[in-house]
Amino acid sequence: MIHSATRPKTDLSRFLNPRGVAVVGVSGDPTRIGGQALRLLTDFGYQGRIYPVNPKYPEVRGLPCYPELAAVPQPCDVALIALSAPHVAGTIEQCGKAGIPFALVLSSGFSEVGAEGKALQERLVAAARKASVRVVGPNCLGILNLKDNARIGFGGTSQLTTLKPGPMAMVTQSGGFGFGVVSAAAYYGLGCNYAISSGNEADLTLLDWVADLIERPEVEIVVAFMEAIDDGRRLLELGERALKLGKPILAWKVGNTAVGSQAATSHSARMSSGYELYRAAFRRGGLVEIRDVDDLIDISKVFLIRKLPAGNRVGVLTLSGGAGVLLADRCVEHGLELPALSDATRDKLSKTLVSFASFNNPIDATAHGYNDNFASYGKAVRLVLADPNIDQVVARVPRGKAAGPWSENLLETLRGTCKPLILNWPTAPDDNGQVLAYLEQHGVPCILGAGRAVHAMAALTDFARKRDAYLKAGKRPLRRAIAPQPLELPPTRCTLGEYRSKQLLARYGVPVVNERLLQPAAIEALASCPLAFPVAVKIESPDVPHKTEAGAVRLDIRDLAGLKLAARDVVAAARRHKPDARIDGVLVQEMASGVEVIVGAVNDPCFGPTVAFGLGGIFTELLKDVTHRFAPFDADTARGMIAEVKGAALLHGYRGRPALDVAALADVLARVSLLITDHVNRISEIDVNPLFVRESGVVAADALIIVKGES
Amino acid sequence: MIHSATRPKTDLSRFLNPRGVAVVGVSGDPTRIGGQALRLLTDFGYQGRIYPVNPKYPEVRGLPCYPELAAVPQPCDVALIALSAPHVAGTIEQCGKAGIPFALVLSSGFSEVGAEGKALQERLVAAARKASVRVVGPNCLGILNLKDNARIGFGGTSQLTTLKPGPMAMVTQSGGFGFGVVSAAAYYGLGCNYAISSGNEADLTLLDWVADLIERPEVEIVVAFMEAIDDGRRLLELGERALKLGKPILAWKVGNTAVGSQAATSHSARMSSGYELYRAAFRRGGLVEIRDVDDLIDISKVFLIRKLPAGNRVGVLTLSGGAGVLLADRCVEHGLELPALSDATRDKLSKTLVSFASFNNPIDATAHGYNDNFASYGKAVRLVLADPNIDQVVARVPRGKAAGPWSENLLETLRGTCKPLILNWPTAPDDNGQVLAYLEQHGVPCILGAGRAVHAMAALTDFARKRDAYLKAGKRPLRRAIAPQPLELPPTRCTLGEYRSKQLLARYGVPVVNERLLQPAAIEALASCPLAFPVAVKIESPDVPHKTEAGAVRLDIRDLAGLKLAARDVVAAARRHKPDARIDGVLVQEMASGVEVIVGAVNDPCFGPTVAFGLGGIFTELLKDVTHRFAPFDADTARGMIAEVKGAALLHGYRGRPALDVAALADVLARVSLLITDHVNRISEIDVNPLFVRESGVVAADALIIVKGES
Repeated sequence: MIHSATRPKTDLSRFLNPRGVAVVGVSGDPTRIGGQALRLLTDFGYQGRIYPVNPKYPEVRGLPCYPELAAVPQPCDVALIALSAPHVAGTIEQCGKAGIPFALVLSSGFSEVGAEGKALQERLVAAARKASVRVVGPNCLGILNLKDNARIGFGGTSQLTTLKPGPMAMVTQSGGFGFGVVSAAAYYGLGCNYAISSGNEADLTLLDWVADLIERPEVEIVVAFMEAIDDGRRLLELGERALKLGKPILAWKVGNTAVGSQAATSHSARMSSGYELYRAAFRRGGLVEIRDVDDLIDISKVFLIRKLPAGNRVGVLTLSGGAGVLLADRCVEHGLELPALSDATRDKLSKTLVSFASFNNPIDATAHGYNDNFASYGKAVRLVLADPNIDQVVARVPRGKAAGPWSENLLETLRGTCKPLILNWPTAPDDNGQVLAYLEQHGVPCILGAGRAVHAMAALTDFARKRDAYLKAGKRPLRRAIAPQPLELPPTRCTLGEYRSKQLLARYGVPVVNERLLQPAAIEALASCPLAFPVAVKIESPDVPHKTEAGAVRLDIRDLAGLKLAARDVVAAARRHKPDARIDGVLVQEMASGVEVIVGAVNDPCFGPTVAFGLGGIFTELLKDVTHRFAPFDADTARGMIAEVKGAALLHGYRGRPALDVAALADVLARVSLLITDHVNRISEIDVNPLFVRESGVVAADALIIVKGES
Repeated sequence: MIHSATRPKTDLSRFLNPRGVAVVGVSGDPTRIGGQALRLLTDFGYQGRIYPVNPKYPEVRGLPCYPELAAVPQPCDVALIALSAPHVAGTIEQCGKAGIPFALVLSSGFSEVGAEGKALQERLVAAARKASVRVVGPNCLGILNLKDNARIGFGGTSQLTTLKPGPMAMVTQSGGFGFGVVSAAAYYGLGCNYAISSGNEADLTLLDWVADLIERPEVEIVVAFMEAIDDGRRLLELGERALKLGKPILAWKVGNTAVGSQAATSHSARMSSGYELYRAAFRRGGLVEIRDVDDLIDISKVFLIRKLPAGNRVGVLTLSGGAGVLLADRCVEHGLELPALSDATRDKLSKTLVSFASFNNPIDATAHGYNDNFASYGKAVRLVLADPNIDQVVARVPRGKAAGPWSENLLETLRGTCKPLILNWPTAPDDNGQVLAYLEQHGVPCILGAGRAVHAMAALTDFARKRDAYLKAGKRPLRRAIAPQPLELPPTRCTLGEYRSKQLLARYGVPVVNERLLQPAAIEALASCPLAFPVAVKIESPDVPHKTEAGAVRLDIRDLAGLKLAARDVVAAARRHKPDARIDGVLVQEMASGVEVIVGAVNDPCFGPTVAFGLGGIFTELLKDVTHRFAPFDADTARGMIAEVKGAALLHGYRGRPALDVAALADVLARVSLLITDHVNRISEIDVNPLFVRESGVVAADALIIVKGES
């Protein structure tokens, strides 16, 4: 799945805006799917040709009706299929014969309803591949192209006349839910040029559509509502593409909790990857995670300002202290700064506002701003926007009649600045509603909730920061710490023992404890210990993966007699634990110490090889203070990863202790990422636990690698 | 401040609904405050008498104008004062003489503008006390009584005709902000009977109004927007009262971050208590914290269902899988459970819905729910509501024409159940808007965002849980572990040394390490150690509060020679640190160990004595994993406190270690709460750090008490 192209091979333009649509299984009855589908084409301004297909009728609603696809005139770009599931595959074959490149299958009764449906879906896929027909669906609501009035599908929400075109595009794995959101967005002034219900994704997937839509000039924001995707790497590539284009992908993922996942699985018959990996992906590139309708609307509006802030320094302006304090609270919570204004700005403000206004940030012009019809308040906004200490401004909108002229002046001001301005609306949306509409139509979002305004501002700031970094650094080539190393791995799935696992890690340059794997008899015969005391003694057996629980570990052995006794003990314990356990030997290792961390790597079915990092014990197990990266990566990325966990303070000289060797730790993380990537087809899991971090260097004290069978 | 009465002594009914209002400083010019104030009374249906007062005019807008308050006819309950600040105190004196019990001072120029204004406010307060006149303001927008059409104040928002009466009441320390919120609430269908802008609170405070409003039958929800209050205990009492009455107080606190607090202080000239204590208060009683306009509206609507859930078990019903998964995710995040339905319900559902619907919770009726005009979907909602495993239901609303009859049937269903039902609206509010309005008018909230719907549901559930517990337990008398103990404390403010601090703790029954305070000479003369080795040796000096930093601590001393050397060392280190340090002796103590926790107590200026608890080191310092309670409390409360911190797992036998003595820890927390409460006038701070928790018992290894001067 890794490194698939981000763009689908097919140009989907004619799927979105077909010259002609054949409605297969058409009906004159508007309560039937085939009837609704026809009406959506005939009654909402579609400019292409409409070809009803049904052998039962000579004509439907005044249009000539064709007995079969083969009879449909060209050009016909889309077959819209509303037949029962068993008839769909055959119809797709006919598409191929008739030269119709795209099929949109509304019908349900496929993989979502069990084994029989799954077989029907496989037939559908086979037919599409053979006929080179690209398919949306089955089990979907279709495509809404509101820009060109092509509503290709069915459903109640699709019939709303209030839907409107605009710079948003949506792809949704839940059609009912997603189209509802499109209608809500229209109500709040946010238009949508394209909405695609991807259904069961037998062929074209959510990511195919994201890849298509993000490139279209008429699309400035792509919303992706997903339960599960099957190619996390492609999501990452699309995120990078989004960053380059300066357009956000608003990623809305559901099915993230135990109960949620259960529902997602039974709904879509697809396994969900862990939400942590999705979140790790959403933090990268031009992806912006959203979690509710409000997020979608607010964040979209803020992006449609079409200005990115140069940094996180916010100026807050209000006419009432309470609002300023609230906005300031939320800014700080979101990691936005409220710096002091420059002396020059403060000086000018003091000549503009009343003497008891607050010139600290948040700037409170007080209700006296009302006394001059907001002339001074407007000037204050301009002064703060111009302040070199300020990257963006959030201001409360004044209310009353004079707010109209104020807002006109404001637009003048904004023409002269490249800094974003977000407004916080102070009363009901219908109080001075025409001013609100005027401002929003001119790209100045007016958000009712202070917290919502700041949340959207923070999303914009984060995107801008990532884009800046991306444009500065470009796509940095991976600096490998070590070339790919050949490994000898067993041919079938198994868990390697500790000794073997550490040998493989050592091959990739990961420091491991000084240890020897010895046979019990060899230990009995020892005249002196080959290692420095104290040592640990452990059983090495593929059949005893949990050595401690089996009682097959002895720690802190301080002399040769103790070593021999311990070796006998752990062999006996292993035999008690599993009488037929294969015993590869007894592992004798020098005791190690330091701050415990855990390095884990998993070859995730969706995201490919990923590396997790956390501090040991409490931090990882109790506090879930863990961070993830997608392999491979180098030490620079690893350093960012280490800095992300709360427990990182323990590595940096906590409570007067010496700072630890974070560079060596970062190096190990990078090397583990190379190990799992180079052997992605053979290694499914790596655990280095614990890795001890010291003042100088690190050392892996225990490890476990799970090998998957040769395929 | 502690244990003030929760109700103000004065009946404020006639302040809210006066028989007559005198407008002092009236004007015919509607751009002036005195002109606006008059218009608000004349033009919005006020039924009482209006008495303009201004010696300049014989009449204003057709009403006779009186030269002074003494000339105003009775009954006149409120003087609405719009004079410049220096004239206000004299006018309040006149209120007293004229028998007018209430004054509402709109004027600014008081404590919010510096020393001169502060002096004017003090004069105002003195005049009000002397004349027994109760005052709202100064520097406020007044009172809106929308129920009786009495708009007593000024400002643009107060003039909106869209404001509407209803079961909410609001008190706000920021009039401009709060009244804006009232207008927004009206837009979203939530009416407000009373809104009070409390301004500088020279006399009547936000809490006075909360206390008044919560008792009124026409008020079901009180919203309090606050920057700072001066009596946290009264807030707690009001919270308890709210619980008893079954009405929530929605507490909205701003000025919570460093920057925010700075702004709050400069705005209100009042010190803010730490937000942590406010949050601890908001978690108690009938207080519900809100953080934005949306919270206010959603949570209010959900309370207006007027049904409290018996537990946290939620049934989720949808017509589309995506929505169900989203709702399920949010429920789990909010600690709400989605239990399996009973077999009987599943059985009935399977006869009601299509075979491929999901009968797991979330229940997905699928789009086939549309095929019978939602008859089966309506039945499914009824079945799930009736399930004994379910305490409350959140369901998606169907759309289209048939949603009307569905919603009517739904109301029938709801008459037969005492379980709350919350609806999640699937599309734009104007799609089927009449159904939305119909449902909301009949007490079924329709919330657009799934996350918002669940957030409100969680708030209701939490209130219900607290109310249940309160009604079951009643106001439990405090079970004191120890009677008040007399203490000998120095007369002036000082920090007590470690030995002295632990002696005081021991007086309250807190176990402390075995230790001796010895003079250096006495140590030199020792023939044997009076304590068991190993011991710690520390300087005891009021001038060396940070012993470790001063190098005046030696740990793990294992013999007598070492003890003598260590004693000499710590004395020398103290002298180096501060040559004139007073040395009370050398503290020799047995080394203690266990899991480190911190117990702190602070006598907060707003909330009185409070106790904080956290696990040592990382947990408290790095992760801020700390919890608070208001003193005094007993061990039961302390157990709840311990359970709240994430690190508590370390006390309960983490990673196979033995469980520690949580009962002894709870006992110490309760005893510390008694110590600071009994001596609240003399002790300002107690630190027990570390307290070691062991398998059996606990022991305080170090402590520090700050004494305040006798007042």
